[in-house]
Amino acid sequence: MRAELLMVGTELLLGETTDTNATYLARCLADLGIDLHYKSTVGDNWVRMTGALATALERSQIVIVSGGLGPTQDDLTREVVAAATGRTLVFDERAWEEITRLLRGRGRPITENNRRQAMLPAGAVRIPNPVGVAPGIWLDLNPRLVICLPGVPDELRAMMQETVMPRLRARTGASPLYSRVLRFRGIGESALETELMDLIERQSTPTIALYAGSGEVRIRLTCRAGSAEEAERLFAPVEQEIQKRVGDKLYASGTEPIEALVAKALTVQKATVAVAESCTGGLLGERLTSVPGASAYFLGGVLAYANDVKERLLGVDKETLKSHGAVSAEVALQMADGVRRTLGADWGLGITGIAGPGGGTETKPVGTVFIACASARGNRVVHHRFVGSRDMIRRRAALEALHLLYQALRDFDPA
Amino acid sequence: MRAELLMVGTELLLGETTDTNATYLARCLADLGIDLHYKSTVGDNWVRMTGALATALERSQIVIVSGGLGPTQDDLTREVVAAATGRTLVFDERAWEEITRLLRGRGRPITENNRRQAMLPAGAVRIPNPVGVAPGIWLDLNPRLVICLPGVPDELRAMMQETVMPRLRARTGASPLYSRVLRFRGIGESALETELMDLIERQSTPTIALYAGSGEVRIRLTCRAGSAEEAERLFAPVEQEIQKRVGDKLYASGTEPIEALVAKALTVQKATVAVAESCTGGLLGERLTSVPGASAYFLGGVLAYANDVKERLLGVDKETLKSHGAVSAEVALQMADGVRRTLGADWGLGITGIAGPGGGTETKPVGTVFIACASARGNRVVHHRFVGSRDMIRRRAALEALHLLYQALRDFDPA
Repeated sequence: MRAELLMVGTELLLGETTDTNATYLARCLADLGIDLHYKSTVGDNWVRMTGALATALERSQIVIVSGGLGPTQDDLTREVVAAATGRTLVFDERAWEEITRLLRGRGRPITENNRRQAMLPAGAVRIPNPVGVAPGIWLDLNPRLVICLPGVPDELRAMMQETVMPRLRARTGASPLYSRVLRFRGIGESALETELMDLIERQSTPTIALYAGSGEVRIRLTCRAGSAEEAERLFAPVEQEIQKRVGDKLYASGTEPIEALVAKALTVQKATVAVAESCTGGLLGERLTSVPGASAYFLGGVLAYANDVKERLLGVDKETLKSHGAVSAEVALQMADGVRRTLGADWGLGITGIAGPGGGTETKPVGTVFIACASARGNRVVHHRFVGSRDMIRRRAALEALHLLYQALRDFDPA
Repeated sequence: MRAELLMVGTELLLGETTDTNATYLARCLADLGIDLHYKSTVGDNWVRMTGALATALERSQIVIVSGGLGPTQDDLTREVVAAATGRTLVFDERAWEEITRLLRGRGRPITENNRRQAMLPAGAVRIPNPVGVAPGIWLDLNPRLVICLPGVPDELRAMMQETVMPRLRARTGASPLYSRVLRFRGIGESALETELMDLIERQSTPTIALYAGSGEVRIRLTCRAGSAEEAERLFAPVEQEIQKRVGDKLYASGTEPIEALVAKALTVQKATVAVAESCTGGLLGERLTSVPGASAYFLGGVLAYANDVKERLLGVDKETLKSHGAVSAEVALQMADGVRRTLGADWGLGITGIAGPGGGTETKPVGTVFIACASARGNRVVHHRFVGSRDMIRRRAALEALHLLYQALRDFDPA
């Protein structure tokens, strides 16, 4: 069973919007064990949409179209699907009821163009939209299948979860694709491939693929299997061999973000954390609290952008600031230790650095970041020189702070 | 001049990576006035890559391929481009020199597979990579043009800026595409279209397009023009007419993120801001400090996740916490006012809410968020009930806090 994505929207071709829908849909298909071979993006243009849809229907069994279901004139998906499949558009009373109920509930006027959103190709089934106006379209052309979803991410996701995923699961019955991700730090992609080359060439079930992530390299093992247990049996010997060769660089498995790994370790150890951020301005706190239930281990933090705030709220020494500068190992340590003590946390993290584009000096160029981790058991501080934009430097600094804490939590793990 | 993007990478079809490169490349092409009609994504697969490249070369003059230039076995772009254009691959000494110098500089071993990265299709020109290993490919097939760039975002961007953009600018000489974005709050997409329907249907230069953004609706006016002044002359009458009809809902123009608008307003008014965040955990601080030079107006903040931190660092009243609850208008106001006073800022923002998925009650369901803005001139507080995931609620809360401050800054603007 092969699927294809057709993303519709001129805004996607003007660089104004990053297409997170495609990522999400791809993930859903992988979970269902449906192969995704192509993804295409076209603007709100009749000719190009029609051409792309025809191509997709030729080479793929399932075509998922996202976007173009809005009320306005350039929303053409309904018409294009009807035309490409030789159907008329039919007004769907039930869809219209839901549209008007939702608009009334939000106190929004019901305009004539909203009626377009209740039109479905003849023979299609409406996909209910629990969080927005536009219903989706499920058009079964047996054996082909066309699914149309709105481009608004929240709506698309809710409709996939509630309706499309269960229906596709029932329809395909294919062996799901299982994958296992091993994550490495301290080794580059090509060096890792060299270590494992013979294994990569020999292996077919599971396959082994390498890719560079942010601050890490990942190996993905993939196979089709009848059950998770069967997949596990296929993965185990390959994983053991990888462990044997490069196990010292392996720091985690799975695709959970580092903040989730930190959250688990803190929860298991019944420990709490507080953060003191300068150049990252809240990014570290944001990542730590992005995990549901973060209040169990995250007490809070201080965004100490101004030096005065570092002194008054974190107790950073004025003399240290003067002699070593705000961007220094000493200040990072005092920030981490200060926030830990002030908030009464087991662990404190401190970040101070120069995210740029201005503010760099010869000895401390843009990208210089000091990250400290403090606890009753001792302190650590690391010095980085990141390259890239302000945004990249900040993201990388927060990431490395999470890794510093994770490593410390593992080293000090009482279990 | 028509361009097409071909994004290569199995990881893009497995939903593990969001394709921000496509967004960036689309933006670059728009800036150059080059039309982008198609974007396709395929996995690291010889047959599908070759097919997609052939299709692209048939219908577009410029094809930009991103990804597949790494050192590993599944990096096929070099071979595919050579095969599709009937060329051999040639070892490029200069590229090899740069590759080995960079790897040595990073203390990374030079492996046999790195040599593949120095291979270029015969007749192609190397695109230097200032931040990574893989050089790019510029293959002029006059009139067709194939450009290959690595999939690593930092490398792709640096190479576009330094080499590809200047060369494309010199080559095309087309009238650039100008666009002007008008941003509205307090009116929905369909209501806005209804107000402007006759205008949208009548207009061709500039064209008028509507799209829903996060917490706002945008109108984009687009035209080709010989100069910015000429574009301005074309935009002016249409913009005036839009102003006349729905000007009361217009809050900004341009595509600058709201934090940049806030940054400008604070800078003009020589004012400072501090934040007190609970459910957003640093997201608001992160957005305010994402603007270069944020230290001019951002003093810092307190991430008051635990109630104890709200009391001790922000002076929130224990009784208020008890009687109204941590998620209340009263606590939001005390947080905003507390952080403003503690940090000595002109403006204070406070956010408290329930991001979920747990923690909701009947009277305060998940998505309930109170946002306060405090200043010497007075305080404001707003109550929201956002829908969606934890992440969406948090992002929306930070966004609305920025809008609350922006509106207050405009209302109190001394100028």
